[in-house]
Amino acid sequence: MTKKKRAGIWQRRFSKPVNNDMLRFTASTEEDVCLIEYDIAASIAHVKMLRKQKIIPGRQARSLIRGLRQIRTEYLKGKFRLLPEHEDVHMNIEMRLQELIGSTGQYLHTARSRNDLVAADLRLYARAAIAKLIKKIIMIQKKLLESARKYKTVVMPGYTHLQNAQPVLWSFYVLSYVYRFQRDIECLQYALKRVNISPLGSCAFAGTTHAIDPDYTTRLLGFDRFADNGLDAVTDRDFLGEVSYICTQIMLHCSGFAEDMILYVTREFSLIELDESIATGSSIMPQKKNPDVFELIRVRAGNAIGNLTGLLSMFKGLPSAYNRDLQETKKVFFRQVENTFQCLDMSDMVIPYLRPQKNIWAEQENIICATGLADYLVQKGYAFRQAYDMIAQCVKESKGKVDKFIKKCVNMMKIKEEMIRSLIKPKNAVKAVKSKSGTGPKQTNQAMRRAERLVRKNQQFVRQIRTSSAAV
Amino acid sequence: MTKKKRAGIWQRRFSKPVNNDMLRFTASTEEDVCLIEYDIAASIAHVKMLRKQKIIPGRQARSLIRGLRQIRTEYLKGKFRLLPEHEDVHMNIEMRLQELIGSTGQYLHTARSRNDLVAADLRLYARAAIAKLIKKIIMIQKKLLESARKYKTVVMPGYTHLQNAQPVLWSFYVLSYVYRFQRDIECLQYALKRVNISPLGSCAFAGTTHAIDPDYTTRLLGFDRFADNGLDAVTDRDFLGEVSYICTQIMLHCSGFAEDMILYVTREFSLIELDESIATGSSIMPQKKNPDVFELIRVRAGNAIGNLTGLLSMFKGLPSAYNRDLQETKKVFFRQVENTFQCLDMSDMVIPYLRPQKNIWAEQENIICATGLADYLVQKGYAFRQAYDMIAQCVKESKGKVDKFIKKCVNMMKIKEEMIRSLIKPKNAVKAVKSKSGTGPKQTNQAMRRAERLVRKNQQFVRQIRTSSAAV
Amino acid sequence: MTKKKRAGIWQRRFSKPVNNDMLRFTASTEEDVCLIEYDIAASIAHVKMLRKQKIIPGRQARSLIRGLRQIRTEYLKGKFRLLPEHEDVHMNIEMRLQELIGSTGQYLHTARSRNDLVAADLRLYARAAIAKLIKKIIMIQKKLLESARKYKTVVMPGYTHLQNAQPVLWSFYVLSYVYRFQRDIECLQYALKRVNISPLGSCAFAGTTHAIDPDYTTRLLGFDRFADNGLDAVTDRDFLGEVSYICTQIMLHCSGFAEDMILYVTREFSLIELDESIATGSSIMPQKKNPDVFELIRVRAGNAIGNLTGLLSMFKGLPSAYNRDLQETKKVFFRQVENTFQCLDMSDMVIPYLRPQKNIWAEQENIICATGLADYLVQKGYAFRQAYDMIAQCVKESKGKVDKFIKKCVNMMKIKEEMIRSLIKPKNAVKAVKSKSGTGPKQTNQAMRRAERLVRKNQQFVRQIRTSSAAV
Amino acid sequence: MTKKKRAGIWQRRFSKPVNNDMLRFTASTEEDVCLIEYDIAASIAHVKMLRKQKIIPGRQARSLIRGLRQIRTEYLKGKFRLLPEHEDVHMNIEMRLQELIGSTGQYLHTARSRNDLVAADLRLYARAAIAKLIKKIIMIQKKLLESARKYKTVVMPGYTHLQNAQPVLWSFYVLSYVYRFQRDIECLQYALKRVNISPLGSCAFAGTTHAIDPDYTTRLLGFDRFADNGLDAVTDRDFLGEVSYICTQIMLHCSGFAEDMILYVTREFSLIELDESIATGSSIMPQKKNPDVFELIRVRAGNAIGNLTGLLSMFKGLPSAYNRDLQETKKVFFRQVENTFQCLDMSDMVIPYLRPQKNIWAEQENIICATGLADYLVQKGYAFRQAYDMIAQCVKESKGKVDKFIKKCVNMMKIKEEMIRSLIKPKNAVKAVKSKSGTGPKQTNQAMRRAERLVRKNQQFVRQIRTSSAAV
Repeated sequence: MTKKKRAGIWQRRFSKPVNNDMLRFTASTEEDVCLIEYDIAASIAHVKMLRKQKIIPGRQARSLIRGLRQIRTEYLKGKFRLLPEHEDVHMNIEMRLQELIGSTGQYLHTARSRNDLVAADLRLYARAAIAKLIKKIIMIQKKLLESARKYKTVVMPGYTHLQNAQPVLWSFYVLSYVYRFQRDIECLQYALKRVNISPLGSCAFAGTTHAIDPDYTTRLLGFDRFADNGLDAVTDRDFLGEVSYICTQIMLHCSGFAEDMILYVTREFSLIELDESIATGSSIMPQKKNPDVFELIRVRAGNAIGNLTGLLSMFKGLPSAYNRDLQETKKVFFRQVENTFQCLDMSDMVIPYLRPQKNIWAEQENIICATGLADYLVQKGYAFRQAYDMIAQCVKESKGKVDKFIKKCVNMMKIKEEMIRSLIKPKNAVKAVKSKSGTGPKQTNQAMRRAERLVRKNQQFVRQIRTSSAAV
Repeated sequence: MTKKKRAGIWQRRFSKPVNNDMLRFTASTEEDVCLIEYDIAASIAHVKMLRKQKIIPGRQARSLIRGLRQIRTEYLKGKFRLLPEHEDVHMNIEMRLQELIGSTGQYLHTARSRNDLVAADLRLYARAAIAKLIKKIIMIQKKLLESARKYKTVVMPGYTHLQNAQPVLWSFYVLSYVYRFQRDIECLQYALKRVNISPLGSCAFAGTTHAIDPDYTTRLLGFDRFADNGLDAVTDRDFLGEVSYICTQIMLHCSGFAEDMILYVTREFSLIELDESIATGSSIMPQKKNPDVFELIRVRAGNAIGNLTGLLSMFKGLPSAYNRDLQETKKVFFRQVENTFQCLDMSDMVIPYLRPQKNIWAEQENIICATGLADYLVQKGYAFRQAYDMIAQCVKESKGKVDKFIKKCVNMMKIKEEMIRSLIKPKNAVKAVKSKSGTGPKQTNQAMRRAERLVRKNQQFVRQIRTSSAAV
Repeated sequence: MTKKKRAGIWQRRFSKPVNNDMLRFTASTEEDVCLIEYDIAASIAHVKMLRKQKIIPGRQARSLIRGLRQIRTEYLKGKFRLLPEHEDVHMNIEMRLQELIGSTGQYLHTARSRNDLVAADLRLYARAAIAKLIKKIIMIQKKLLESARKYKTVVMPGYTHLQNAQPVLWSFYVLSYVYRFQRDIECLQYALKRVNISPLGSCAFAGTTHAIDPDYTTRLLGFDRFADNGLDAVTDRDFLGEVSYICTQIMLHCSGFAEDMILYVTREFSLIELDESIATGSSIMPQKKNPDVFELIRVRAGNAIGNLTGLLSMFKGLPSAYNRDLQETKKVFFRQVENTFQCLDMSDMVIPYLRPQKNIWAEQENIICATGLADYLVQKGYAFRQAYDMIAQCVKESKGKVDKFIKKCVNMMKIKEEMIRSLIKPKNAVKAVKSKSGTGPKQTNQAMRRAERLVRKNQQFVRQIRTSSAAV
Repeated sequence: MTKKKRAGIWQRRFSKPVNNDMLRFTASTEEDVCLIEYDIAASIAHVKMLRKQKIIPGRQARSLIRGLRQIRTEYLKGKFRLLPEHEDVHMNIEMRLQELIGSTGQYLHTARSRNDLVAADLRLYARAAIAKLIKKIIMIQKKLLESARKYKTVVMPGYTHLQNAQPVLWSFYVLSYVYRFQRDIECLQYALKRVNISPLGSCAFAGTTHAIDPDYTTRLLGFDRFADNGLDAVTDRDFLGEVSYICTQIMLHCSGFAEDMILYVTREFSLIELDESIATGSSIMPQKKNPDVFELIRVRAGNAIGNLTGLLSMFKGLPSAYNRDLQETKKVFFRQVENTFQCLDMSDMVIPYLRPQKNIWAEQENIICATGLADYLVQKGYAFRQAYDMIAQCVKESKGKVDKFIKKCVNMMKIKEEMIRSLIKPKNAVKAVKSKSGTGPKQTNQAMRRAERLVRKNQQFVRQIRTSSAAV
């Protein structure tokens, strides 16, 4: 319970010195490092507005802006450190400003509060994070498309319930992930609409008696619009939840892909060869070649679910306006975003190493093609359920032996053996698929071109997101 | 381990009878009740497409449609029950169809799979749920706006950290929730874009050799577009996660409101009178009047977080294409949606009972107005931090006694006592607020009109969502 | 907003009729069905104590007990229904009692509150649930041990990172789950210590001026001890959390087992034959035989995580003593317990169907035995890392071809080919294991006997848990 | 995709250099810092056993032990750094050992694996964490008991549903938290039984052909017993889940306490004076004195729920034996434990600052005492529900005005006014409580002495937990 004289602005308010441990516990300076550049940008914009509105004199304003820019320079040079005794990024900057420009620094906090300021900082951070996430996902999409092109003709088994279901093209399989990730990008685009709103000018929550022009700050910072209600503006952390949710979705997609790869590189599946450059060994079993990197991608989704849940639990039952509980939400949010960056980087890194094994499997008769055979019977006039039943009977009676199965089919369906043999070769079964979203080579080629167009659109979109805060 | 001959379509495939307990465990007939009407609609659309494409003959198609409509009629009359021995809604309908129209029923499942069908059903359900959620939220927004209008002039303390912070208008406070709920509606609108996509025509996942026209089914069912990749289309349950997330956000908003109300109706806060019509008593303490309904609204957010977490954990690490794990996600999703409906209904019900207490508080000098006083000093030429420091000093020295505080201020700031007294009356402090998103009466009035326009737009939007599946 | 005269005890307290919708929303009668028998038992015990302490007259007490027993009889006959207008199980029983025995029923609620009563009910429920969970786990342990005995000599590959690691006995593998479940039982045993405490006699939380004897009620209900502090006693729901956590642990164990089985029954692994009695088919792919039941066991853990998270979120930040939020915790807790019962029943049902495939694999040289070879080299005098390196080199150079590997080894290690061939046959490698917790046949046999003793102890323990509440 | 020659032990196994990014992603060296001392201790114990069993020669063993002790010294001096290119703590120590003692270091990894080693390390860490948690909780219990003694006679309102319910002693209130925390200690004690088991000697999972003596290692490291089944021993992370769950329970208890304090220090409740030493101010509202530290304690429970959920999601559906997913569980577990330490430290720090306000409230008639009045009527011969009804009627008719209430009571009950006035003074109402777990002064005094005894027992227990690993 050591105590210490209060630093900076609190000394006038309180008679007693502050408990030093409390200061250490409650300071957010560790996580606030992520916000420094945004806090400076928001402050500069705010000062420009105060000057324009003549709320503070021009000379003071110029001095403030100069001071803030100097702090930015110090930060970029790694010379600006946040001190816990000044609680957070906002007071640290205000204090440093007073060191740099003297008592003029006392003008900075006019007509604003830490409540609207931290909300603005977080929104600028989230906007930049969205742009970065989209860029990383685009990288993955491009690598997936490359793989799809490279191994265009490879046919592999498709699974449901992890059982052999129908043959598919590797490119068709890979495209399914391009589309999953496309949904993530779409979600991020819409989230941006809720992120990119300015709370600056709401002050503590009730507004101010000063004749501020929040629309001006909004424009300077590249926000889409100014928040309508100050109480909502400073309380609202929904955007942290929404972006954290999308991060979880992204990592769930990565985890599904990783699970597939872990299975496909097993000796038993042997669909993908695990490249040694991304494999690890055992400390005791000399023969091992392990897909650790995929396991680590898979598990990240667990971390993501935890962060999201933690964040939402923090929000539950909070009364209106700012509560200090919100400080902890920053920490979890930054962790979630960083976690996602890493998970995307790992996923991006491994894709070029994936080599689907070209094997003779696709050329040999296989019961996995039973559905195509049923469809053929339908085209010959059977009702589908009838066709299904006949084949099911042959499967049962042949106990899964393919030659016996063919013989049974020939007997039951009065179709020539060559025809059946041809129909149930995976390569042919894939070629026979005609439907638009199916695995047929032509359809898959078209889908690849559509996917490439989507990626180009994504690139155009992301270029328009303002991420630099230096411009202010 | 009782066993039973396999019902319906499986008998040809398997040599052994099915274990009866397994059937009971694995059937989804209990939750699938929610999908009956959508499954019928999707089936009718599918049959119409098969007929148009000449994949099944016209006579059979007409018979199938007639049968499906009859099942719909039975369902609406409460006469169609799902039997666990037929596993799920899809097989139940196919089996009933065969009872009704004989072997023609065997044509139904041509060029489709339960995989694309259940995805379509769920999307139709989710679309209707979104419409219903938006409607319920609009109801709440309207009641909140009524309350804002009714108690337009009531001034109350605003809180941060649950400490008296600044005075606000009741209408300003209430509006903050209108905007929170507006975000929920916006999120639901965007989610609809990801929900309203047709997977029907993806079959098991690989597509089909039949010349289907999935765009036609898409149009018939009112979907926006057809899914691009069949493997993704049958695996994708992101929309369940997204809608469940938004439901959680909605309930978090409700929980914040409930927490406020629980506090405001305490004897200690006494800001709201708890109407006896929505109060409950104690079994042992005769004097009690308890706000149980608000506690039950508050706690629902906990349930929501749990459902969301459960759902996301289920998705984690699932391999590609359909896995039976997805069955459990339906159950949790329906529970989440129903939970939200109830929570919104409760919230809607209580709003008209909320009567902010008109008290003399707003007319009396109060240190809660200290920020307005600081702003006044700034307008007189002080730097904000200087003004802040002076007032902080007066607060400290007067130990929070308002008369002593006024005296200290008069001495220190050389302002007339009347002026200070006037500035720190909550009513006046509220009136002095000029900023756009602030609590000033004029600004709040304008905000109310903007909010009313938003509500009207919401109503227009929701009217356009197709929810009936009878039309098919 | 229909309204209704207040039923029963509240009519004297409130001037206004109650809002009917609120009644419907807030009633817990649906979930309270689980508590009826425990509420009656607790009430009878309470009345007996009141009589002993002469707090109520003997005649009244006899009448109350008679009435309560009659309600129990009605309940067991399915004739006692909980009405939402009486809020919960407690008031329903009090109201029914007044119907049955007239105004004497008004004596029932002396020196108690719904707060201590519901806590007592929940603890009696949780105690019975623990007993039931242990019994179900014992069933599974016994079936696992049966399987271990039945397929005692089967050797299969053991995996790490899902890659072939070392050969193991099926019985050794199966035993690992016996031990996992043993931990669950141990956790449940300790949880019982925290569950089996009587809160009855704490009243609302502050105690009572009546000269009650809570130790007597404690004994009558078979609780271990009386709670020390009334405020804690009525607030405490930790035991719901703890039991829910253990349920989650149980289902995580089941999910691991299910995951193994899903892998082992794939065509690719083919370690276990999926019995047709517990397999399901596809609606479109006639050849499919799917392990749905295992997927449904696997996914339950997701549900469990969700329920637990939901419960804990509900607890977060609740102020002291009873809050109505606690009502919702009952619902989630009952759901969690029922969920676990089902998951255990499913797991129990499938075990006898698991037939490990006896194949020739165990008799053939296999690089999976590389570790045993390294240990052999160590016994010949090499440092372990040296031995490891030599073998690693041979693996690399032979690219995993076993014959080439053997040749390389012979060259490098100067050991006879027969010796190497013998060492790397899985069957021999398993036999060579000597360590206590290892897969050696002798060790595994001993472990099986130890495990059987544990199961017998479990059975003894569970017999001593009092689950019947009829005795009161 | 920069590549790099593989460091250390992997170079012989793989033909290709490792991808450097993969190394960076997959290394656990950052979190493994927590395990260094335990890894060294486990290694020394292992080498001692190998020597005793003559598996490695005595000279080599002595050299290994000397080397390991030197690494410990380096570590304690801050000179031992974990390098990512050596993946984890285990390989870093083995590599450093080889630097220090040359090729003798190659003997270290005989008859063990990283799989059993990391499990042992984690268990030693968890054991020490349990001891530290218990110690911190004891500190809190002692401070709570001090507060209870110091403000022994202070009477305050007790709440249910946040409404005035019954008067209680501050000491009675405070004791309720002593008991909550006692449950946490009890849970930790039982968890220790599942933590303190040795997996060392299970090797990769299948055991070893060496004649090891795992019971010896078990004794050297102070474990209670050796794990029964190697496959379970290396897979089992239940103890991480269990300890993480208890951490969550601890933080939920802290969050409840914090919530109470946040309410009690509001201007409206004014039950506790917020000491300035632990208060913070606003940046804009000069009058504010905020209880931030309590808000930050409250919110930690959200973080805890998230960590727990994340951890459990990671476990879900993992196949048997070691998977690299488990690496991520370490990170979350350490975070959870550290989080709890901090939360306990904060809670500990604030308790001495809590000063319940001694006010005249307890001396004045108050309807909060209605239950005591009802009990009095019961003692006069009324049935409880009758007594309740009469008082409820008086409350209703007096609209909560206490003088009117007294008058109504006098009229209705024919009791003297003085008697009623005396009965409904909070101070008297508290004194009248006689029941064992109630708030009566005598009972509370006895409870305090019982609680003190518990704390002494806790202290005895914690002293016996072995936490130092230097002894090995």
